[in-house]
Amino acid sequence: MFTFLVDNEISIELLQQQHRAELYELIDINREHLRQWLLWVDKRKCADDLQPIIKMWLEKYAENNGFDAGIRHNGNLVGMIGLHYIDWKNKSTSIGYFLAENAQGKGIITKSISNLMEYLFERLDLNRIEIQCAMNNVKSKAIPVRLGFINEGVIREGQWLYDHYEDIVTYSLLKKDWEDKRIVKKLSI
Amino acid sequence: MFTFLVDNEISIELLQQQHRAELYELIDINREHLRQWLLWVDKRKCADDLQPIIKMWLEKYAENNGFDAGIRHNGNLVGMIGLHYIDWKNKSTSIGYFLAENAQGKGIITKSISNLMEYLFERLDLNRIEIQCAMNNVKSKAIPVRLGFINEGVIREGQWLYDHYEDIVTYSLLKKDWEDKRIVKKLSI
Amino acid sequence: MFTFLVDNEISIELLQQQHRAELYELIDINREHLRQWLLWVDKRKCADDLQPIIKMWLEKYAENNGFDAGIRHNGNLVGMIGLHYIDWKNKSTSIGYFLAENAQGKGIITKSISNLMEYLFERLDLNRIEIQCAMNNVKSKAIPVRLGFINEGVIREGQWLYDHYEDIVTYSLLKKDWEDKRIVKKLSI
Amino acid sequence: MFTFLVDNEISIELLQQQHRAELYELIDINREHLRQWLLWVDKRKCADDLQPIIKMWLEKYAENNGFDAGIRHNGNLVGMIGLHYIDWKNKSTSIGYFLAENAQGKGIITKSISNLMEYLFERLDLNRIEIQCAMNNVKSKAIPVRLGFINEGVIREGQWLYDHYEDIVTYSLLKKDWEDKRIVKKLSI
Amino acid sequence: MFTFLVDNEISIELLQQQHRAELYELIDINREHLRQWLLWVDKRKCADDLQPIIKMWLEKYAENNGFDAGIRHNGNLVGMIGLHYIDWKNKSTSIGYFLAENAQGKGIITKSISNLMEYLFERLDLNRIEIQCAMNNVKSKAIPVRLGFINEGVIREGQWLYDHYEDIVTYSLLKKDWEDKRIVKKLSI
Amino acid sequence: MFTFLVDNEISIELLQQQHRAELYELIDINREHLRQWLLWVDKRKCADDLQPIIKMWLEKYAENNGFDAGIRHNGNLVGMIGLHYIDWKNKSTSIGYFLAENAQGKGIITKSISNLMEYLFERLDLNRIEIQCAMNNVKSKAIPVRLGFINEGVIREGQWLYDHYEDIVTYSLLKKDWEDKRIVKKLSI
Repeated sequence: MFTFLVDNEISIELLQQQHRAELYELIDINREHLRQWLLWVDKRKCADDLQPIIKMWLEKYAENNGFDAGIRHNGNLVGMIGLHYIDWKNKSTSIGYFLAENAQGKGIITKSISNLMEYLFERLDLNRIEIQCAMNNVKSKAIPVRLGFINEGVIREGQWLYDHYEDIVTYSLLKKDWEDKRIVKKLSI
Repeated sequence: MFTFLVDNEISIELLQQQHRAELYELIDINREHLRQWLLWVDKRKCADDLQPIIKMWLEKYAENNGFDAGIRHNGNLVGMIGLHYIDWKNKSTSIGYFLAENAQGKGIITKSISNLMEYLFERLDLNRIEIQCAMNNVKSKAIPVRLGFINEGVIREGQWLYDHYEDIVTYSLLKKDWEDKRIVKKLSI
Repeated sequence: MFTFLVDNEISIELLQQQHRAELYELIDINREHLRQWLLWVDKRKCADDLQPIIKMWLEKYAENNGFDAGIRHNGNLVGMIGLHYIDWKNKSTSIGYFLAENAQGKGIITKSISNLMEYLFERLDLNRIEIQCAMNNVKSKAIPVRLGFINEGVIREGQWLYDHYEDIVTYSLLKKDWEDKRIVKKLSI
Repeated sequence: MFTFLVDNEISIELLQQQHRAELYELIDINREHLRQWLLWVDKRKCADDLQPIIKMWLEKYAENNGFDAGIRHNGNLVGMIGLHYIDWKNKSTSIGYFLAENAQGKGIITKSISNLMEYLFERLDLNRIEIQCAMNNVKSKAIPVRLGFINEGVIREGQWLYDHYEDIVTYSLLKKDWEDKRIVKKLSI
Repeated sequence: MFTFLVDNEISIELLQQQHRAELYELIDINREHLRQWLLWVDKRKCADDLQPIIKMWLEKYAENNGFDAGIRHNGNLVGMIGLHYIDWKNKSTSIGYFLAENAQGKGIITKSISNLMEYLFERLDLNRIEIQCAMNNVKSKAIPVRLGFINEGVIREGQWLYDHYEDIVTYSLLKKDWEDKRIVKKLSI
Repeated sequence: MFTFLVDNEISIELLQQQHRAELYELIDINREHLRQWLLWVDKRKCADDLQPIIKMWLEKYAENNGFDAGIRHNGNLVGMIGLHYIDWKNKSTSIGYFLAENAQGKGIITKSISNLMEYLFERLDLNRIEIQCAMNNVKSKAIPVRLGFINEGVIREGQWLYDHYEDIVTYSLLKKDWEDKRIVKKLSI
């Protein structure tokens, strides 16, 4: 019901109980694609399995500790994007996302994060945005790189994935990096 | 951050902690105007008094039991609108609202509810929408009347207001009323 | 264990866990009769199903938000009566009840409410007592009518019952109505 | 509102929020008398201090874990009586009480417990009732003795009272003791 | 991980989730021996049944209300010892314990309690330590007797055990008893 | 009461309410020294301010999510050490610590962590131990370096400290690193 507009085609919508079936279908169709990097995919076996999770997402939002939202492209649910948490003391957050296979290659995530960043740095006055990707997840890593995030290092064996540990790369953008970029952009016009 | 678009000028935005100051200013400027009908106005004496209330509003939203949102007109916060609860068993809800004095006379509430109704009947598949107004609140009662709601009767001395009881009028619109209207509208075009 | 005496034959007793079997028997014998108007009847399939409900009733009582009690006629459990809530801000409450088929026609509910009203208006200093009945529940509607309650209107399609919506009639008695009646009564003696 | 009848003069009533002022007055008038043995008396300095305690008492009752009730003599609140807990696994409980100074010498507590015992052994099917008194509280100890309870021993320094420890005597009556007494009583008639 | 050293051979260790399997094995091997006096033994049918219990034990510890710990003899888990509660107002506690059959006869419990007492009286400044045993549990009763505890009396039919009530004996040691003993000990050396 | 032995001089003790005064004294004496890197120091103004924090620490322990313990050197409380959390899914934890100024230079922290690591890798079967230090905290960074931890990179402006952001360095040791070291150690003997 409540959305954040990215552009004419893309919007981000807070997911509610009435989106259960729609979200489940998205996950189910992309199951093979998503389970490569997301452990929780195997646990969602029907739309009703999403009921407590959607509740948990909204509670996180109510506690002012981030959000979990659907990405719509021309009205269709094609992925999710969210803030894992907001650390208000240190003015820092971490962005997560996934996209349906057939919606890739259109810059949907990049445009979404690009818009979100303005909101996070300007309206919420945050200082640091982080994106963490598995070292081997090449497509996911391309996003922060394209957005000019800085690679800060590798959390070795940071995440267990089915039968092995994945190294996790941390990318970040600080408010000052973002402001510098905006100046460069304006000057170059 | 997350909004429901009514038209080019009006939007409804879920209120969050970052809107505290903005919301307090709205209440404070309209204090005399609002306290006539809203008992809680006197209790809000600074922006921080709104912190627990915004939290409570978002928790209600997280429990899928309605919402409390700000109304923006050309970006300015001019009022609030919400669902007091959603009774899923009986597919019924109740709409509440208030508007800044200087935003009145532009049909902002009427347009907002008109759009909301479509969402409530179509997407949420509710069957009954209620609006309750104090008998003596002439401006407020004009809204459901204008929207074609049916007057169902009076809850005598239903609400305590400072030093006396107010009678409360209940207006309602059923899904079937709403569908009939849409048919009439289409035919008349 | 704790009772409210109505007269020599009728008493109202706060239900506790030890009444589980007795209450279940009452429901089970009157199943066909009760399920006509009470959706919850079908869900109670053994005495132990009542354990969490009795707990919930007593918690409501502990929160000073009404009560749920058994009606005894000559010691036998023949029905239930209660206050759905107490709205202390507006000094208002709503009475609910049901009676076993074989206990009907003796004025048990009417006498019980008549006594309760004195307690609610005098001791608890409430201002408004409401009784809501399904439009088609002729027997139930006879109670508030007999007690001089005022019909305030109809909540159209207010309650879902198995396969259709029921219209709900709201009756009320205000403290001033009740005081007027008492004066009339005294004068007429 | 809900009472347990002891005899024509004495009743035991579940205390609710509306009894706050009445209960506070009882405590306040008997302050010197009560504080000798009851540590909590000094902490109650106005009627509103009783609000959370009455809530706690009713929650205990809702959890089926005893009760805290007022004793009325000819309608006047003259003391309190209750079950500290009910140990359902071992079918055991412990009775506590206090009485206003000016209500003493009329057998009010003895009669109350005598009636309660029948309820506890017969209806609740408990097996053991305990009464614990401070060794030096001669008046209090007289109650279980009069009722035929057995002295089971002394908990040395069992309770801290302002500036010293009190020894605590445990008295008990088992269901079988009570049944024996009833037979003796009947035979002697 | 965290232990309280009794002597070179005996230590008391706070039990955590990682001890589940080890603790279950201890209970399972001693099942016949333990179930004679401990009702809960029959309910533990696999190591995972201990998960919520260990959590509950640690929560009790976190609330500063006693502890539940394993007894290790030369590293092997051979029993448990704990404080059922700590009554800080009255500076009193109650010790409970059980031992594997094959670890008996070595004074393990006696030495453990002997050491614990010093901690409880000196560091925690408690005034009274209680040990309660079933009258018929001869081995268990030998412990407080050996430690010089005083027999304070019998709680008749204090505990339900499968098909009958057990009488419970209360033993206690006061701080002053313990200090007297220490003086005697020193003098006699 | 419950301790983890490091060596003859050093032990790690779970902190409880009875350590409040002792811990407060430690903090107060080292206030200037500690507040350089620890924001919470300024908020602790008396021993009782530690009551809710100690409770929170023990609850974390009860949830199997790390611990917060005192470090004793020859019996004296000289610092604290703990696990900020245990991430059981990814078998990972993070160690934190601080030391009184006058206890520095004796290898107390290094020895403590060295012992803890064996417990964490062997008994708890964790895979990854992390230590995070402010870039400018030279003394603190020396610890993981000395223990052979790997520098994984810098979280830029990761922590707000009074009036500026600190960069945070992440060091880690994996189970396999630790096993390699042990082999090397053995071979070199």
